[in-house]
Amino acid sequence: MPNNHDIDHIIKVILQDYDKKRDVDKMDVFGQPDSKAVEDITHKLLNVIFPGYYRDRVYRSFNDRNRMSVLIEDVMYNLEKQITIALSYNEEYRDTDERLRKEAAKRIAGEFGECIPMIREFVDTDVQATFDGDPAAYGKEEIVLSYPGILATTVNRLAHELFLLRVPLIPRMMTEYAHSKTGIDINPGATIGKYFMIDHGTGVVVGETTVIGEHVKIYQGVTLGALSTRGGQDLRGKKRHPTVEDNVTIYSGASILGGETIIGHDSVVGSNCFITASVPADTRVTIRNQELIYKDGNGKEYSSAEFKQGECWCGGYGNDWVI
Amino acid sequence: MPNNHDIDHIIKVILQDYDKKRDVDKMDVFGQPDSKAVEDITHKLLNVIFPGYYRDRVYRSFNDRNRMSVLIEDVMYNLEKQITIALSYNEEYRDTDERLRKEAAKRIAGEFGECIPMIREFVDTDVQATFDGDPAAYGKEEIVLSYPGILATTVNRLAHELFLLRVPLIPRMMTEYAHSKTGIDINPGATIGKYFMIDHGTGVVVGETTVIGEHVKIYQGVTLGALSTRGGQDLRGKKRHPTVEDNVTIYSGASILGGETIIGHDSVVGSNCFITASVPADTRVTIRNQELIYKDGNGKEYSSAEFKQGECWCGGYGNDWVI
Amino acid sequence: MPNNHDIDHIIKVILQDYDKKRDVDKMDVFGQPDSKAVEDITHKLLNVIFPGYYRDRVYRSFNDRNRMSVLIEDVMYNLEKQITIALSYNEEYRDTDERLRKEAAKRIAGEFGECIPMIREFVDTDVQATFDGDPAAYGKEEIVLSYPGILATTVNRLAHELFLLRVPLIPRMMTEYAHSKTGIDINPGATIGKYFMIDHGTGVVVGETTVIGEHVKIYQGVTLGALSTRGGQDLRGKKRHPTVEDNVTIYSGASILGGETIIGHDSVVGSNCFITASVPADTRVTIRNQELIYKDGNGKEYSSAEFKQGECWCGGYGNDWVI
Repeated sequence: MPNNHDIDHIIKVILQDYDKKRDVDKMDVFGQPDSKAVEDITHKLLNVIFPGYYRDRVYRSFNDRNRMSVLIEDVMYNLEKQITIALSYNEEYRDTDERLRKEAAKRIAGEFGECIPMIREFVDTDVQATFDGDPAAYGKEEIVLSYPGILATTVNRLAHELFLLRVPLIPRMMTEYAHSKTGIDINPGATIGKYFMIDHGTGVVVGETTVIGEHVKIYQGVTLGALSTRGGQDLRGKKRHPTVEDNVTIYSGASILGGETIIGHDSVVGSNCFITASVPADTRVTIRNQELIYKDGNGKEYSSAEFKQGECWCGGYGNDWVI
Repeated sequence: MPNNHDIDHIIKVILQDYDKKRDVDKMDVFGQPDSKAVEDITHKLLNVIFPGYYRDRVYRSFNDRNRMSVLIEDVMYNLEKQITIALSYNEEYRDTDERLRKEAAKRIAGEFGECIPMIREFVDTDVQATFDGDPAAYGKEEIVLSYPGILATTVNRLAHELFLLRVPLIPRMMTEYAHSKTGIDINPGATIGKYFMIDHGTGVVVGETTVIGEHVKIYQGVTLGALSTRGGQDLRGKKRHPTVEDNVTIYSGASILGGETIIGHDSVVGSNCFITASVPADTRVTIRNQELIYKDGNGKEYSSAEFKQGECWCGGYGNDWVI
Repeated sequence: MPNNHDIDHIIKVILQDYDKKRDVDKMDVFGQPDSKAVEDITHKLLNVIFPGYYRDRVYRSFNDRNRMSVLIEDVMYNLEKQITIALSYNEEYRDTDERLRKEAAKRIAGEFGECIPMIREFVDTDVQATFDGDPAAYGKEEIVLSYPGILATTVNRLAHELFLLRVPLIPRMMTEYAHSKTGIDINPGATIGKYFMIDHGTGVVVGETTVIGEHVKIYQGVTLGALSTRGGQDLRGKKRHPTVEDNVTIYSGASILGGETIIGHDSVVGSNCFITASVPADTRVTIRNQELIYKDGNGKEYSSAEFKQGECWCGGYGNDWVI
């Protein structure tokens, strides 16, 4: 261990650094919502949504209804506490006294709680859509227990209601918790219809002003993003992200950008398409085949066309060439 | 805190919602494997695979062999318990009584336990391949302690044995634990040969019916996937994902799709290639150079060709232009 | 539970397997840094960087300065302990006795501690750059509390100092902790200037010898990587990753590869560009528009050009076609 002198010196140097009044120097830990508390609330809300799937040893009980009652009470209490803190970041409440913020938090938590059956109705359709859409799924229990898309979508549906109720900070902390767990980054502002399915999901980005219809299916690496954020804070609140109508499928790696871009209903967007203009309904968009170059062991090159016309060397490889 | 009336109202509304008999309304937490228990088992199995790398304060002991004996006993006991629950999702055992499921779980856990030396033999080759393949690796300890590819591959090798033993739910929960930690999504059904290396790994997807040979190396963002899942549940069990033969390297962002697609041995697939047909052995596949457009500060455009022929403006930039 | 005979058999089989003297057979858990301890140190260092944002119930106190003093003392003590272990992997200290390693660890931990104000100065600029660059950010508190880019960059800045002080293993374990949380994989060797911003971030890879200037902005899926790692361990220590000068923006999915590749200052690299040669200053690089194929509901195909000239069928879709 460093001797006291050294440690004391380092402590002094760092404490002095906290006196610079920059954003990072804020020391009051009770001035903003607590990350750990928000994670805990999010986890318990998932338990409320799926009462049979998250075993929580704290609420051990022989009666499932008692167990869930205690859990709901606990999550509402803690949510209200964190909302009270968060409201000091809302312009409307910033300069009011704490009593008013507490009353507002109580009202907001109550309105949120009443939304839960509606959220559960939507989530049930997501589980159905995921089961119907993935041949690797052996049952709905597997989907609830192990599909990251369901986790990320459910957290978005919860956070979105708090976003609509104008709660600062907490919705984004909730979706970032899901992002950290799943690699799926859905902003709480995004509006998502029923029967939504995300497969695999790593790298998915869904921006704040995105609007998604019903029966939409997206794969890993899809971005529903802004065309440019060069305007920075001046763009805040503007529709910057696309609209995706009903029954659209978007394959892996595709990017769809821009607030005026609409993907019409019943369309399919192929892998890696980069789309910045609207697509009409009932359309399949793909990229013209990549031109691939094949070089054999002797360094001889073949284009995709030669390769496909059977003029290539592959016949010579016998068993290696199977289809 | 909301007054009792409000909280009581919300509890009532939510409890009523659980009466709708949908999939999400399941309330019996003991009817499916416990996520936390499966995570705990997975973590302890990693400790069994690498006995010197996961310090677990629960099993503190001066004798490493005693420590490992206690750990193995614990993990086998808990695994058997979770398998017993999971077997009720296996058609063969669904309608049998619990005693038969318990016996089957005991046999399965035993067979799994006996596979562990074989799994460790494979994992040792993965560590070797990763060390040989990454100039940023300073030693094998670093690879075991901090390479996500090793974590994801080891969990796949464990889960794959349980998949072959026809255990429902648990294998997928195990690989999803690894996916959440690493961003690497390998289905437990995938078959992977020795000396497998994944570098960086975020966004990698390896589908259920993929078959991978020995000495294969893949980078971040690679998909070994299905051509289309429009068939949904009708495709279950069919070979939908590719075969990758020995000594193949697949660079970042490449997608190889389709159950009949075979990448022949000793081939190299370049970054971002999108491949839906077989490639013969000993082939290098790349995409023809992207046509890039370079626009200088005055808005003048240059194509890749002009840029490369030295006709571009870059000479004028002096020090900024280094190669 | 398997009967004792079975369990005993499995334990015996596995313990025998540990006798093979392979890398994976190492059993001494005190021979390398402890993952859990390094995670704990990393988490507490984030608390030291942002004293108001990570509430840690262990250090409950009414006086913020006392709370931070105790925390700094704790983190320095544990860091020194782990560095002592890690130094046995440093050639210089491998064969010295433990007293010398302890003294070196004390010196290194002290030098690291004195860097913290400088690291905080850099991190403050990252928070500013992220706020300025993202219209979805409602305030700087939101950025510290929920932006994965800030977490990954801050951990890189901490780990990079330990990397420069030639501490083995620990820096990479720290950045892998951040990678696991955020999907952003920045090697501790990477050098990053002030005002750095990563948005969304999943899939970002920044290699060991990358050098990044000030005011650089990168998006999800960007790789700053090596051209080829076929040389394996022979390439260790060579500059294999690019240099990005000041005021450069790199959009999602772009790959910039090679140790001699320099992106000149004030340049913009478009989405999905694949760049292996230097780009002069003040340049916008984009890929020539992908050729997209649009197929309507009757199977008739349209090219991008037809589609854009208004010769396409979209007029007929009425309301579905909005821009």
